[in-house]
Amino acid sequence: MEKGAIGPQKLRELIRDVPDYPKKGIVFKDITTLIKRGDAFDEVINIFLEKCKDRKIDLVAAVESRGFIFGGALANRLKVGFIPIRKFGKLPAQTVEQKYDLEYGTDTLEIHKDAITPGQKVLVVDDLLATGGTIQATCKLIEKLGGEVAGILVMIELGFLNGRDKLKGYDLFTLIRYE
Amino acid sequence: MEKGAIGPQKLRELIRDVPDYPKKGIVFKDITTLIKRGDAFDEVINIFLEKCKDRKIDLVAAVESRGFIFGGALANRLKVGFIPIRKFGKLPAQTVEQKYDLEYGTDTLEIHKDAITPGQKVLVVDDLLATGGTIQATCKLIEKLGGEVAGILVMIELGFLNGRDKLKGYDLFTLIRYE
Repeated sequence: MEKGAIGPQKLRELIRDVPDYPKKGIVFKDITTLIKRGDAFDEVINIFLEKCKDRKIDLVAAVESRGFIFGGALANRLKVGFIPIRKFGKLPAQTVEQKYDLEYGTDTLEIHKDAITPGQKVLVVDDLLATGGTIQATCKLIEKLGGEVAGILVMIELGFLNGRDKLKGYDLFTLIRYE
Repeated sequence: MEKGAIGPQKLRELIRDVPDYPKKGIVFKDITTLIKRGDAFDEVINIFLEKCKDRKIDLVAAVESRGFIFGGALANRLKVGFIPIRKFGKLPAQTVEQKYDLEYGTDTLEIHKDAITPGQKVLVVDDLLATGGTIQATCKLIEKLGGEVAGILVMIELGFLNGRDKLKGYDLFTLIRYE
């Protein structure tokens, strides 16, 4: 591993463009080519950790599935607990639900009712900010349980989808932004 | 966080039994009650790290979704890359596939073709060893790409399902076993 060889530009280069996925005309930003490099994955987590400095964080929450990779790693580096937010029907115990809009129709996210103690400060981590629907729903779920969103850290922002507009009032950081 | 308060017995107590999930008669072992405690989640990762000592590991691979939480954390603590193994259709680029048997029917897992360089040593991490089908398929995918399975670390083993029998020849460690 070359020390110090990874910076924001290198991270950007390690993301792969996959044309026509998940459907024709969409260019998918594939992070698997980045996280398969230990130094690059670590650099992302280190940048996220830096953003957590001087901030009280009790828990990290992330949405399945890719969010779990970054959320699990960051929670463990912060030595705090991890809260999975999942698609409807995937969590085994009692949940609270939140609907959110898709391009066509709606989807539902869930959190376990006992995941958060009121007053806990919860950091939201995700790989992608697109339209902002899932991250907004995640914040609502945290707040429904009396938690406080301590911040939102995201690896990639698709700026042209204006997801940021849905997250006004939150402390949002995105590592790599595509205009 | 109480230092040193977490041991194998305490970890076991933190796992929640959810009756009749995902279907009637099944008692689901819910790990969300364990990983929401930072000290307990860290203890699991520390035990896994201890098992990696004196072992050459180039990559960590895990299956979606819960496997990503442990796999992401462990990869980052080891400072190696992370390889996601996903259900059919979820990986954007060129993949290799592996079918495996379910109770009724079959399912398919995929790995990106360029995830592993031949000769790389890949550690497999998962939350659950049940019938062993998904972990066996994961090992086959790694080997199809010329990788070497450096070991398998699992949080919970449902011993009565005999999944271990499918993984003979691999170096398998399970943290908590239910007979």
